[in-house]
Amino acid sequence: MATELKDLTKRSENYSQWYNELVVKADLAEQADVRGCMVIKPYGYAIWEKIQHILDGKFKETGVQNVYFPMLIPKSFLSKEAEHVEGFAKECAVVTHYRLKASEEGGVVVDPAAKLEEELIIRPTSETTIWNTYRKWIHSWRDLPVLCNQWCNVMRWEMRTRLFLRTSEFLWQEGHTAHATREEAEERAKQMLKVYADFVEQYMAIPLIQGVKTATERFAGALDTYTIEAMMQDGKALQSGTSHFLGQNFGKAFNVQFVDKNNQLDYAWATSWGVSTRLMGALIMTHSDDNGLVLPPHLAPIQVVIVPIYKGSEGLAHLDSKLNALAARLRERGISVKYDNADNRRPGFKFADYELKGVPVRLVMGERDMAKGTIEVMRRDTLEKEVVPFEGIEDYVEKLLEEIQQHIFVKAKTFLDSHIYPCDNYAEFKERIKDGGFFLCPWDGTAETEAQIKADTQATIRCVPFGVDQSNPGTDMVSGKPAKFKVLVARSY
Amino acid sequence: MATELKDLTKRSENYSQWYNELVVKADLAEQADVRGCMVIKPYGYAIWEKIQHILDGKFKETGVQNVYFPMLIPKSFLSKEAEHVEGFAKECAVVTHYRLKASEEGGVVVDPAAKLEEELIIRPTSETTIWNTYRKWIHSWRDLPVLCNQWCNVMRWEMRTRLFLRTSEFLWQEGHTAHATREEAEERAKQMLKVYADFVEQYMAIPLIQGVKTATERFAGALDTYTIEAMMQDGKALQSGTSHFLGQNFGKAFNVQFVDKNNQLDYAWATSWGVSTRLMGALIMTHSDDNGLVLPPHLAPIQVVIVPIYKGSEGLAHLDSKLNALAARLRERGISVKYDNADNRRPGFKFADYELKGVPVRLVMGERDMAKGTIEVMRRDTLEKEVVPFEGIEDYVEKLLEEIQQHIFVKAKTFLDSHIYPCDNYAEFKERIKDGGFFLCPWDGTAETEAQIKADTQATIRCVPFGVDQSNPGTDMVSGKPAKFKVLVARSY
Repeated sequence: MATELKDLTKRSENYSQWYNELVVKADLAEQADVRGCMVIKPYGYAIWEKIQHILDGKFKETGVQNVYFPMLIPKSFLSKEAEHVEGFAKECAVVTHYRLKASEEGGVVVDPAAKLEEELIIRPTSETTIWNTYRKWIHSWRDLPVLCNQWCNVMRWEMRTRLFLRTSEFLWQEGHTAHATREEAEERAKQMLKVYADFVEQYMAIPLIQGVKTATERFAGALDTYTIEAMMQDGKALQSGTSHFLGQNFGKAFNVQFVDKNNQLDYAWATSWGVSTRLMGALIMTHSDDNGLVLPPHLAPIQVVIVPIYKGSEGLAHLDSKLNALAARLRERGISVKYDNADNRRPGFKFADYELKGVPVRLVMGERDMAKGTIEVMRRDTLEKEVVPFEGIEDYVEKLLEEIQQHIFVKAKTFLDSHIYPCDNYAEFKERIKDGGFFLCPWDGTAETEAQIKADTQATIRCVPFGVDQSNPGTDMVSGKPAKFKVLVARSY
Repeated sequence: MATELKDLTKRSENYSQWYNELVVKADLAEQADVRGCMVIKPYGYAIWEKIQHILDGKFKETGVQNVYFPMLIPKSFLSKEAEHVEGFAKECAVVTHYRLKASEEGGVVVDPAAKLEEELIIRPTSETTIWNTYRKWIHSWRDLPVLCNQWCNVMRWEMRTRLFLRTSEFLWQEGHTAHATREEAEERAKQMLKVYADFVEQYMAIPLIQGVKTATERFAGALDTYTIEAMMQDGKALQSGTSHFLGQNFGKAFNVQFVDKNNQLDYAWATSWGVSTRLMGALIMTHSDDNGLVLPPHLAPIQVVIVPIYKGSEGLAHLDSKLNALAARLRERGISVKYDNADNRRPGFKFADYELKGVPVRLVMGERDMAKGTIEVMRRDTLEKEVVPFEGIEDYVEKLLEEIQQHIFVKAKTFLDSHIYPCDNYAEFKERIKDGGFFLCPWDGTAETEAQIKADTQATIRCVPFGVDQSNPGTDMVSGKPAKFKVLVARSY
């Protein structure tokens, strides 16, 4: 058995440690030499590339075009939108100089002569620099909508970091749209949330709660923040993507005015929306188990691994010709296959390694199987093994991959549904929240009760969920006042 | 005629200004609000995405995997490789603080309490941080080779900048490989140069001179730098991609040791290689003309534009049904088509605009063409128009796109070949270099004569070109000493 696997902490022992170990042992990412930053390794990056590729196509289907804006933002831009600066100034990497010079003691020091007149910030998000440019692009309603997106790195100086979940530098996409009307901008913000939700459910196999954030939890500068919230196996929430209706806040802050159809000057309406490498954290924590990663077939870099069991080079030659041909036939169907006939590791070690890496389907064939015309199939999600006829195995595998994709979604959905609790008793809430889960609670709509819940339990209002009957929300469980909404409350990552 | 086009400076009047205007007028990029940085606009980014997509596939075919390393590098890393720090310390953006705070006069100021213990550099290139990590990945020959690449942004504080050609921040890919033997590393460095050269010639339609840099022009820290040099229409060289054999310099600087097959400890051998958004500059300057961009069909975001000529909505309806169907049939063949039936611009304006944007093929159909069963075809490279039968137009267009791709390559190759001059007379060289062109000159191999040429003429030795008979290089044109090589000398971007 792989030594990596033997050492993996069990989820039931320490969920948090299990996650930290798994990210490293499965070769997804590791701590970088710079505090709070990560190195995304080839296997992890291959998953991220699949996420990027699929999402990028879906953005483009809605008319979005990719662009690139500079990573450095003049300090003064940040202050132009009052709430935005509050939200982001505290955690900025600041560039103050543009040159090093040789030090007398050897090495290099910052050259004091190369001090910038105005400091530059590494983008924590790009609304300010993009809206300062939109002013030059937008003059008439004919210039609208502007639908731009960029895939890039951003930086938020986090004090407590965890690989993928919260790192100082992370990769993401940020969409920034400008519109002629409020309605169109609100529609776009909701549309992009739907794009995210469909992607996360269909490709990542992660079931979601969708909703709108409270004023406290909104993006700094937004009128409304829409969110998708996923439940991890410890019952905590992980905010997996957000889409913001920004009103005219950035249009006004950066004076982006246009002549509308009635020949009147108006400020442009804005949205922004993003998902990040955080999704990798959600993917890992939703499906994986004590044996390692469980990857949804739609995102697995290797969907099928084929391992021959043989003695001597002659035995291998027979298996090679048969299994290389099988690998080729599977690849023709668009399935990504690894044929591992290397003799550097014993089969048991290979098995444990591919389990750790979450390869959805494993095919194993020995000389006896070959004689009998059979092959062994193992599915990673249930670890079930089956011996099936070699003839027709391509169809079998293709169907099985879809079945696994569906199965891990249904499994996660069952888990989510069985851990959502209606609750209007605060004492009960305080006790039960310790075990995790999403609580559907009546809320009076005030920031005070929201703060109280957080102070008492560390839980936050994740959102006012869509699709919940809000006609009779009941009585706020904290204040005893009439509730305005039923809200989803949970501890979160 | 489009006002943008009317204003475009002619190449013969001012080549440099023609370029600067074209980049902006064709909606490729513009100056950002941060000095020396650029905004890459949707049309420009669409070309860059095609470049990325094709190159990325070619890298992967050679076994390269994508990764992501942090953009911030501890200052001390830079000093570990002696030559590397010389080459890059002078132009670094330096992060010294990690927080802003509200100022008493309003706005935000750098929080002096949030000073970093060790300053961080925004990567100008990532050898140092990557090799510091490779130390953890590489222990045995079994761990080798390591073949990683990343697509990312980098920052070099340039004083004089031009869109795409030289910007403080730019986008690129950087490959970093580690090997067990010198031979394998040298082989990889050459292999990646070939990948670049094939791509640039076959997709960008830019003919190249390949060769190896002199010691003076090498990458800081390399033993050998291989280069591809393209010739712009003004006869200047543009270095379009480089691949470096780094020897054991970084292996030693970062103590990356491994146990080889003979159980001996050795330092790992390295290469690195990169191309950047500079390629966009090469693309524009090689093919474009006084009417605007000329794009090679293999990289054009829109390969075919179809414009109907009509009076009234009934006329349009007929054309729409015929031309939408044509567009669909072309798309089925993998051709990207824009059908522009919008009534917001006159046909003449549309024509000029698509010429400016370099769309390779324009199809125009009026009601009379429809009656006669014909369609007008214009090819952007020669601006030739032809009326051809509508029947079979798909085949015609598909062939024409390939023909244009070949034609602009041949045209550029003819230009290049006719502007390479053998020259061993320094007086003649000094006179003729003013008009541009590549000069093949005997060189004594010393840095002194190299420096002399540069001081006298601003020209540099671009490379010792491959494929040139070096058996009898002659006499150095500056020093009169026996030459070691024939080298390519040119002014460059």
